[in-house]
Amino acid sequence: MHQLTHQIVLKTNGRRLYDITSEVSSWAANSAMITGVLTLYIQHTSASLLINENYDSDVLVDMEAFFARLVPDGDPLFIHTAEGFDDMPAHVRTALTQTSLSIPLVDGKLALGQWQGIFLYEHRLMPYTRKVILHLIGE
Amino acid sequence: MHQLTHQIVLKTNGRRLYDITSEVSSWAANSAMITGVLTLYIQHTSASLLINENYDSDVLVDMEAFFARLVPDGDPLFIHTAEGFDDMPAHVRTALTQTSLSIPLVDGKLALGQWQGIFLYEHRLMPYTRKVILHLIGE
Amino acid sequence: MHQLTHQIVLKTNGRRLYDITSEVSSWAANSAMITGVLTLYIQHTSASLLINENYDSDVLVDMEAFFARLVPDGDPLFIHTAEGFDDMPAHVRTALTQTSLSIPLVDGKLALGQWQGIFLYEHRLMPYTRKVILHLIGE
Repeated sequence: MHQLTHQIVLKTNGRRLYDITSEVSSWAANSAMITGVLTLYIQHTSASLLINENYDSDVLVDMEAFFARLVPDGDPLFIHTAEGFDDMPAHVRTALTQTSLSIPLVDGKLALGQWQGIFLYEHRLMPYTRKVILHLIGE
Repeated sequence: MHQLTHQIVLKTNGRRLYDITSEVSSWAANSAMITGVLTLYIQHTSASLLINENYDSDVLVDMEAFFARLVPDGDPLFIHTAEGFDDMPAHVRTALTQTSLSIPLVDGKLALGQWQGIFLYEHRLMPYTRKVILHLIGE
Repeated sequence: MHQLTHQIVLKTNGRRLYDITSEVSSWAANSAMITGVLTLYIQHTSASLLINENYDSDVLVDMEAFFARLVPDGDPLFIHTAEGFDDMPAHVRTALTQTSLSIPLVDGKLALGQWQGIFLYEHRLMPYTRKVILHLIGE
């Protein structure tokens, strides 16, 4: 049994879902492990992780439209406004999605379903540098 | 330290929460491991996983009522409608709940609380065949 | 490779986010492991786990304000009311946040981001005794 870790650094340029499936899958495949479990962990509270359909890009548009309506920018409900009118909504969106994901490795590949992609969800409007930690244990 | 994997195949017949606690717990108990961690991973983007109360079935009815109101079918907000008026709502419901769960194994049993059950949440109206991957590491 | 488990018992006194970062981080640091993955698991369906900003306490106030508005107590939608008008809302809030979290251990420390804290989110109004199971695997 052994372990590997990796860090993905992604420079975002606005609020949207960024597909990181390829980078994550390649890293896991290159581990030469056959069976194991991958943990993804994002080190932020205004960006999150999401497994989502990666076939029709309209799904990404609609997902963002839903969250924009559910957690509106500049909502007068919020008192934490010093970091921008999109900051507290970004924290709420992060709470409603994922900070960590666990994906089994089976037969040397991540056990993603046919239509599943792994996304970093940037919730802030301005550019940020985001870090995702990967940890793989198995053999 | 060793690992085991398993696949649960569930044929759903409509939108609701399906209790998979018994099948998951039995498999984990049969592993003969004393200490470890179980990962559950669902390979879909229109069905999800949820830990929920499994005592009063009214909780399941109310949970579904809440999600049906929060993410209405046929919402004119959505442009991804080719796969049905319940498809994009299913993706959003999946985003708001879980694609992966991690449950410790302690003293040879899953560390579920007294009222906790493990559910597969089918978000589509038509029947589907759903797959959940289980991965257990421990000793 | 080895494993450690631990149980955190927290007596809550009302609906709010309780910061458990210090207790979790100390326990992980005392494990003397360098690389690994920590699983946190809460054994309840009306309290949950959340990674959130721990710098400005206004964020915690706003987070609670958002969930209170999204899932109102005493909502006539709900039929499961025997355990109190805040019980079914607590189950929904739990479904919308996390029952389990996975955090990598890198260089002997949890890979938390600079502004991230680990919170137990009590969703009931009355006092409760809440249990969180910690499982760490690594070396």
